[in-house]
Amino acid sequence: MTDAASYQFSGQRFTVEYRLSGTEAEARTKASLVCNDQTVEAPDKILPAGMIREQILGRVERFAGAAGFSLAAVSYPIELLGGDCAQLLNVLFGMSSLRPGVRVERVEFPEPALSDWPGPRFGRNGWRDLVGIPVRPLVCGVLKPLGLPPAALADLAYQFALGGLDLVKDDQGLGDQPFCPFKERVARCAEAVAKANQETGRRCLYLAHVTGRWETMRQRALYAKQAGAGGLLVCPGPAGFDALRDLAMDDAVALPILSHPALLGSFVTQADSGMAPAFVFGQLPRLAGADASLYPIYHAGFPITRDDCRAIAKACGESWGHLKPIFPTAAGRMGFERVLEMCEFYGQDLLFILGSSIQQHRAGLVKACRLFMDEVARSAKL
Amino acid sequence: MTDAASYQFSGQRFTVEYRLSGTEAEARTKASLVCNDQTVEAPDKILPAGMIREQILGRVERFAGAAGFSLAAVSYPIELLGGDCAQLLNVLFGMSSLRPGVRVERVEFPEPALSDWPGPRFGRNGWRDLVGIPVRPLVCGVLKPLGLPPAALADLAYQFALGGLDLVKDDQGLGDQPFCPFKERVARCAEAVAKANQETGRRCLYLAHVTGRWETMRQRALYAKQAGAGGLLVCPGPAGFDALRDLAMDDAVALPILSHPALLGSFVTQADSGMAPAFVFGQLPRLAGADASLYPIYHAGFPITRDDCRAIAKACGESWGHLKPIFPTAAGRMGFERVLEMCEFYGQDLLFILGSSIQQHRAGLVKACRLFMDEVARSAKL
Repeated sequence: MTDAASYQFSGQRFTVEYRLSGTEAEARTKASLVCNDQTVEAPDKILPAGMIREQILGRVERFAGAAGFSLAAVSYPIELLGGDCAQLLNVLFGMSSLRPGVRVERVEFPEPALSDWPGPRFGRNGWRDLVGIPVRPLVCGVLKPLGLPPAALADLAYQFALGGLDLVKDDQGLGDQPFCPFKERVARCAEAVAKANQETGRRCLYLAHVTGRWETMRQRALYAKQAGAGGLLVCPGPAGFDALRDLAMDDAVALPILSHPALLGSFVTQADSGMAPAFVFGQLPRLAGADASLYPIYHAGFPITRDDCRAIAKACGESWGHLKPIFPTAAGRMGFERVLEMCEFYGQDLLFILGSSIQQHRAGLVKACRLFMDEVARSAKL
Repeated sequence: MTDAASYQFSGQRFTVEYRLSGTEAEARTKASLVCNDQTVEAPDKILPAGMIREQILGRVERFAGAAGFSLAAVSYPIELLGGDCAQLLNVLFGMSSLRPGVRVERVEFPEPALSDWPGPRFGRNGWRDLVGIPVRPLVCGVLKPLGLPPAALADLAYQFALGGLDLVKDDQGLGDQPFCPFKERVARCAEAVAKANQETGRRCLYLAHVTGRWETMRQRALYAKQAGAGGLLVCPGPAGFDALRDLAMDDAVALPILSHPALLGSFVTQADSGMAPAFVFGQLPRLAGADASLYPIYHAGFPITRDDCRAIAKACGESWGHLKPIFPTAAGRMGFERVLEMCEFYGQDLLFILGSSIQQHRAGLVKACRLFMDEVARSAKL
């Protein structure tokens, strides 16, 4: 049996940091298992000498034991990747996702591999340019509840925009339902926001949720753009991260994208398995090309801690080759009561997802939005 | 504010069974949360009277308390679905995936909703017709380890087919790597299996792994078919279940599909959150159109129990409208030692995924495969 000796490997490797639970000895066993599971997935005895052992097999580059778990950085040759999210996810966690006690923490790419990832088209600064707000947290209203017809959603969108919000997004439950057809909803909401913008002189953007089969998503994104939507809401959990990536890279679409956490929760409901929130809500959407990443805030009834949120914000904003920084978010039935806390926690580079509770405000929706924007400006010390 | 009263709901609802952990009181609270989270996702106070409360909101249809957890069947209007997997997953678990202690057990569709799902093109009997084996468990060899060049993989494929296996599949790590390009690999392996078939007079099928962006996957599937591959291996975890569905529904592709569990492990590594193995490895791939579903067997170092495997086999094989039954599998470094046990556990309708340990057999690979096939026939009492 021959091996891959005829191909000359570049020697460039990318690294995945795994959190491995158990004693140090157990964690070391798990690290070896990951090296094998994620590559050759075969008993040692059938591995030929040479390139397969030297290049293909995962390699533990760093190992740090801690109480109850260890962190192991495992490297793989960049030749295993295909430039798409599916192959990346397969290589870094395909089989190991089936091993309890193994969690993906972060990925590190050498420059040659990172060049396959265009990343966010707009990023944080691109959003800011589009809405004309160079500093302060941005605020996005949500068109809810599911079940309202297009006219009612458009009316909500109009009031949000009139009230001074920067963005208005579809709820992720909105697809192309008979009680609220996609085309009518998107056209009406975009029109309503444009009307409000004419009155306010501001540049609020309406984000249309696009779902369906891949080609359907693309057609919907193109329709949304033509109808005047200023951005897209995408759920990479059910649709696949490559659906998001394709939309982000599509020059005919060319709209900023807000990534939604639907279905991705199962990766983060366990501390010792799955994927770290900073990976699944930070690095991964940024790599795929999202311009902002939505996820629930800490202390809102979800398994996301303060430390997780800090790590997500870091993954969204830290220097990462040519990949533009993106917005982290404050979401999860967010209202007035947490604005100051969020501004102090995140700083200016933050996107508030304003919960539907604003609709109950006794001042009325437009006035309530203005009060909320005042509260954001005050809390952000502007 | 108006509601969706102008649309006449069909009254048809589909039902999702959730496992809710905690005391009965806690589980009832979780059930209410699911009803809200998966639909309106808004406080009760802003829900208008009428259709939204009566039709859109999830409704607990059955509730059964047990020790430590309860089972709640929640119904939703079929109008929420869009006929694609992404929307289905979003509606049944989008936000609830973020709630620890909520697990999807199974889904039940009324006939009108099921008609949107063509399901498996071949199913169990279709596979059997293609390989010409009307009864007994089928056996599939795996082309491993990753790192071998196309010629070496083709040689393995030839030996597997000569040894009498029914199927030979790519390892899921094989993409389009420079040391093993997709086109060369697929053409050579298909050719090798065809050559063996000429010698044996049998009809072994080679299953090509197709990955990449959606359009790339489709182009690879079409190439594989033209090159003589007899089926496809697809990983719906990283690629998205709609990628599998599109390939299954594509009349130009029209090849049987084996679904692979890569990345889906995170849904099953926790007993009280995520998705039940019978859902994610049984109902879901069958609904999306897979003709066989691969997942690890119990007692193989993975978090899958005997009961899970029994439930997966039931979900793959039970009567479900027009959806053809599909093959469950016995996989996870499977060798001679578990053949009898598997045959007794699953019966005749089973697909063995023969692990790479067969490559170590002292009789040589072709002879070892023949011995394995003998063992299967004997164990299946044929």
